[in-house]
Amino acid sequence: MIIIMEPGATNEQIEKVVKKLQDNGFRINMNHGDVLTVIAAIGDKRLVQPHSIASLDGVREVKLIQEPYKLASRESKKEDTVIEFSNGVKIGGNNKPVIMAGPCSVEADYTGLLDVARAVKAAGGEILRGGAFKPRTSPYDFQGLEEKGLELLAKAKSETGLLIVTEVMDTLDLPLVAEVADIIQIGARNMQNFKLLKAVGKCDKPVLLKRGAAATIREFLLAAEHIMYAGNEKVILCERGIKGVDSSSTRNTLDLAAVPVIHKFSHLPIIVDPSHGTGRRYLIEPMSKAALISGANGLMIEVHHDPDHASSDGAQSLTIEQFNALMDSINDMMNKLGMNSENATVAG
Amino acid sequence: MIIIMEPGATNEQIEKVVKKLQDNGFRINMNHGDVLTVIAAIGDKRLVQPHSIASLDGVREVKLIQEPYKLASRESKKEDTVIEFSNGVKIGGNNKPVIMAGPCSVEADYTGLLDVARAVKAAGGEILRGGAFKPRTSPYDFQGLEEKGLELLAKAKSETGLLIVTEVMDTLDLPLVAEVADIIQIGARNMQNFKLLKAVGKCDKPVLLKRGAAATIREFLLAAEHIMYAGNEKVILCERGIKGVDSSSTRNTLDLAAVPVIHKFSHLPIIVDPSHGTGRRYLIEPMSKAALISGANGLMIEVHHDPDHASSDGAQSLTIEQFNALMDSINDMMNKLGMNSENATVAG
Amino acid sequence: MIIIMEPGATNEQIEKVVKKLQDNGFRINMNHGDVLTVIAAIGDKRLVQPHSIASLDGVREVKLIQEPYKLASRESKKEDTVIEFSNGVKIGGNNKPVIMAGPCSVEADYTGLLDVARAVKAAGGEILRGGAFKPRTSPYDFQGLEEKGLELLAKAKSETGLLIVTEVMDTLDLPLVAEVADIIQIGARNMQNFKLLKAVGKCDKPVLLKRGAAATIREFLLAAEHIMYAGNEKVILCERGIKGVDSSSTRNTLDLAAVPVIHKFSHLPIIVDPSHGTGRRYLIEPMSKAALISGANGLMIEVHHDPDHASSDGAQSLTIEQFNALMDSINDMMNKLGMNSENATVAG
Amino acid sequence: MIIIMEPGATNEQIEKVVKKLQDNGFRINMNHGDVLTVIAAIGDKRLVQPHSIASLDGVREVKLIQEPYKLASRESKKEDTVIEFSNGVKIGGNNKPVIMAGPCSVEADYTGLLDVARAVKAAGGEILRGGAFKPRTSPYDFQGLEEKGLELLAKAKSETGLLIVTEVMDTLDLPLVAEVADIIQIGARNMQNFKLLKAVGKCDKPVLLKRGAAATIREFLLAAEHIMYAGNEKVILCERGIKGVDSSSTRNTLDLAAVPVIHKFSHLPIIVDPSHGTGRRYLIEPMSKAALISGANGLMIEVHHDPDHASSDGAQSLTIEQFNALMDSINDMMNKLGMNSENATVAG
Repeated sequence: MIIIMEPGATNEQIEKVVKKLQDNGFRINMNHGDVLTVIAAIGDKRLVQPHSIASLDGVREVKLIQEPYKLASRESKKEDTVIEFSNGVKIGGNNKPVIMAGPCSVEADYTGLLDVARAVKAAGGEILRGGAFKPRTSPYDFQGLEEKGLELLAKAKSETGLLIVTEVMDTLDLPLVAEVADIIQIGARNMQNFKLLKAVGKCDKPVLLKRGAAATIREFLLAAEHIMYAGNEKVILCERGIKGVDSSSTRNTLDLAAVPVIHKFSHLPIIVDPSHGTGRRYLIEPMSKAALISGANGLMIEVHHDPDHASSDGAQSLTIEQFNALMDSINDMMNKLGMNSENATVAG
Repeated sequence: MIIIMEPGATNEQIEKVVKKLQDNGFRINMNHGDVLTVIAAIGDKRLVQPHSIASLDGVREVKLIQEPYKLASRESKKEDTVIEFSNGVKIGGNNKPVIMAGPCSVEADYTGLLDVARAVKAAGGEILRGGAFKPRTSPYDFQGLEEKGLELLAKAKSETGLLIVTEVMDTLDLPLVAEVADIIQIGARNMQNFKLLKAVGKCDKPVLLKRGAAATIREFLLAAEHIMYAGNEKVILCERGIKGVDSSSTRNTLDLAAVPVIHKFSHLPIIVDPSHGTGRRYLIEPMSKAALISGANGLMIEVHHDPDHASSDGAQSLTIEQFNALMDSINDMMNKLGMNSENATVAG
Repeated sequence: MIIIMEPGATNEQIEKVVKKLQDNGFRINMNHGDVLTVIAAIGDKRLVQPHSIASLDGVREVKLIQEPYKLASRESKKEDTVIEFSNGVKIGGNNKPVIMAGPCSVEADYTGLLDVARAVKAAGGEILRGGAFKPRTSPYDFQGLEEKGLELLAKAKSETGLLIVTEVMDTLDLPLVAEVADIIQIGARNMQNFKLLKAVGKCDKPVLLKRGAAATIREFLLAAEHIMYAGNEKVILCERGIKGVDSSSTRNTLDLAAVPVIHKFSHLPIIVDPSHGTGRRYLIEPMSKAALISGANGLMIEVHHDPDHASSDGAQSLTIEQFNALMDSINDMMNKLGMNSENATVAG
Repeated sequence: MIIIMEPGATNEQIEKVVKKLQDNGFRINMNHGDVLTVIAAIGDKRLVQPHSIASLDGVREVKLIQEPYKLASRESKKEDTVIEFSNGVKIGGNNKPVIMAGPCSVEADYTGLLDVARAVKAAGGEILRGGAFKPRTSPYDFQGLEEKGLELLAKAKSETGLLIVTEVMDTLDLPLVAEVADIIQIGARNMQNFKLLKAVGKCDKPVLLKRGAAATIREFLLAAEHIMYAGNEKVILCERGIKGVDSSSTRNTLDLAAVPVIHKFSHLPIIVDPSHGTGRRYLIEPMSKAALISGANGLMIEVHHDPDHASSDGAQSLTIEQFNALMDSINDMMNKLGMNSENATVAG
């Protein structure tokens, strides 16, 4: 921790800061400049609350030196985390990127869901996505089929062998969701719903954690840390776009540099959701491929058997035909670049 | 709803859009320009999902004309909502702005809490704030005293007669919190925790809803709409700063124009939290006064009996002495401007 | 300067950094933590380019400790800068806040301009604003009367005795503008047009520098530093709104906390432009008053004799009648709070 | 243009709006809803200033339907613009993506510049970049060699046959810059320096226009429109990162979706600058490749013969060795995907 004192800080104020830090077990190095004094406090940040130092008189600013997450950090674990499922699917490391695809919401029409699931399977996808519990900005929008939706997902799983990823929105629903889901999704709006993070941290299912719409990488990894600290180390991160300067050309700004940044700072796998990340159908192909080239461990893509009648996010959902064309294009690229086999990611 | 077709849209595509809208009960006005065709669909947005129109071939963009919230809108209710408590305190309309003050977190030291509560009371404040359940970015930070904290708040209430506002983070904790709180707070990070919004919507206690750190006014009012639609019309909004271009001078960018904007578009009361909104002690006085001048129906301020040892947010908490000086300055301004009595707000 | 080394940095890499810093005249303090080594380099940042340190192998991050501006900083000059004009008007310090008002663009109809100027004068305003050179987002919008506009401003000045503030967009036009303007304005879009900053830095006229739409306070003060470093210390800063998360309720997000932040870090005066800062007529009154309460040294307000036919920004311009009502309201508040005389600002 | 009236707008107010629009040559379609009246005005936006409509009483909002740029729009020109140089290099359309590389600033050491230029040439690059006039946030940073820098660039051009791209910061310097540059660069900070845009619009040299750090796609294309409207249609756009929510992991947020968005809305070529776009050396390889996969018509990359001693932006500059490795990796990818020949871009 680095403590920058105000230019006019008195010796007494400086000594008070030093004493408090020493009392808390920190080693102190003083750095007296011409204008400012800077105190370097060496030790574990958790020994003292930085804000309790920041509130002392004469302190201008407290800067953290070490990233505040531990379990999620690359420093705590050098090798990439790889999450393996009983059917052999692996997410992370140099494994072939996975495809999670399916409708935004699970709807009553099971045949449609099954058509999508079969298309995902046929195109080489591993995981069926679909929302049973739906976070909706407006109370007047479709709120999801809830339990009924979970049942349909379970049925589609048993018919296709695909794994299931689906969102949980509340601790109360977690037991229900965890029964069906192979991967439990935490949505972007709940990235800092800490009670929910702790609750999934006590599950034994892998968790897909979406980045909040205005979250820094540090906040994102701290959210993962909440889950890991509660006991669940199987966290898959998901970049899905952040609020940017232009909300009219795209729904969000897809931050693809976040992929290699996270690979540097964390050992956790990270996938990309170009459907929410752009909100425009015509952008899904270029952004899917760019995401894989950036080093993404997988993609999450919205596909609907009939987007014109979808109960949510139709405009960014692909038809089954468009999805097949996308997968052809992606597979073609991955084959040519040798990414479509194990030990395969581009930006290692 | 306004549907803008692509410049190259075919007649067939245009007709398909028109038919779908008419089938859903909309009246249609066609506007053929030289380059683009624009379709005006007149009727209730809830009759059709805009995205299901946006997904049709040949559609460039769908623009909503009417604000998508109803119950929260000024159009649905001309008069300001005033929330009245059994002890006579009123929030909203032309009533004297209320002061909510207290520590960020309730801590084990009850004497300290009581000292703060007495100072709030003595300075003319009406409501004691204090977090028992604490949303914390890091799992290593103090997470709140939970039930024990609620007990201490109840005790301080019974000794001072102040009303209590405290945060709920999860539907599971709601019964506990609702027992003690006079006002149930939804934090900024949970502004779009829709399950929680619905749950407090079924309570009979007023709800203080904080604006999310990157929420638009529309998203903010739609979150209020979730609560109101579930049955609870007693919603108090709270501006607490948004993520801005500069996170080093201030913790957040306090958006004071949101106060008169919300007074125009909604009948709900809105208060301002300059403590979180700036994160800097020296900014609390000018921003508190500016908030009141902007038309805020109240303030929420962090005060701690010993900020240097606070378990959260010490650097933005005032000491009791500083709080007293702040209240003197605020009361002096309000007295001079005639705001310290009923029928009093400045920017009507 | 604080240099944070990568966790895996070798001794050799650390020594190379230290040597380079010492060779450039820095004193070095080493801070070896358990995971990271942190090097504190004491001396003038200008002795070495921080990026040349950041590029060395094994360096994770370089953090600046001292603000990089000097002449603009409060540390270099304790007392507030006050800019005084030959007619006795003073901007800055505890002087009565000044009012700069007038049309967005100067138009061919001189009578209209004169009507506005007389209204500004009558209401107690000191300075007439009006654009002769206009930065316009679209090439199809009105680009300003240029020289002709300057002539009309000069005429209005001679008839009313008001000072003139008007924008310069290019070094080539500076001689012309400087002849007429009492204060030369640099628009938000040119805040980092460094050639223009240097050019006005060589003028002997005060400069009104508007904050760029996405500029941090540090970047803003560094832009002022460019002007001062070139020789002109008479800089007036102007907060005019930044790009925020919501561009539909307001044109920009007016950052009023910037006012007391700048008073803390700089001795330069700062005024607020609520017209561009909000882009909505109904927000000008509450935001004008809130700005003054925040400690602004003045206001810049758009007034037009006929906004429905204005050639730019009509929707945010007040009519003369609305301006008179605004000034009554502002003056009433300032009188009641004792701000309408010398030694007067609220947030000292 | 769509005009949305306030819910309480009177018939008189509505008629006044209609009359004004008709007087200006618009055809009118009325759309009376239950709550609001919406007026569709069909005709050329340039016939009337939208803000002069927005200022009329009873108007809530004016929405533009058609993009306000014309010459830059895909609608005005279906085929991609291809810019061809006398030595056969082509930028845009399906041509092989171009590589622009070189030091951030041109420095006095000509040998170093020549080493870089030769490496660029050897790796298959077409264009040497290098700043002679440098926009610098601080006046204490190196400001560029100016004329001397241009001379060195000219010399490197004559020795290698590379084309030259270099920045102009002020209209006064344009003749000098235009003499040496094959492509004149407008920096991000000058994207809305309209006088400069007009001046380069009167040159016969191609212009590389960088996106402003907070510019929307619409503002970006309107800036291009300024240049084209002044007479120069040879505009190359450049995405170089925008201000995002996280300025600590990366310098900017590289908005790669902007590439296919611009290909949809405009016929102009667009390249990507991953050096400024990320500010981190380790991100340049993955982001360069992702940019090409997104459909970029070229890349601009910083290379320095000795980044540890560079006078600007060392930390994001590659060494010659690193640049060679990058180019190997890029060329390998392009070869495998068949992009390294004409008629070659991926996302057509």
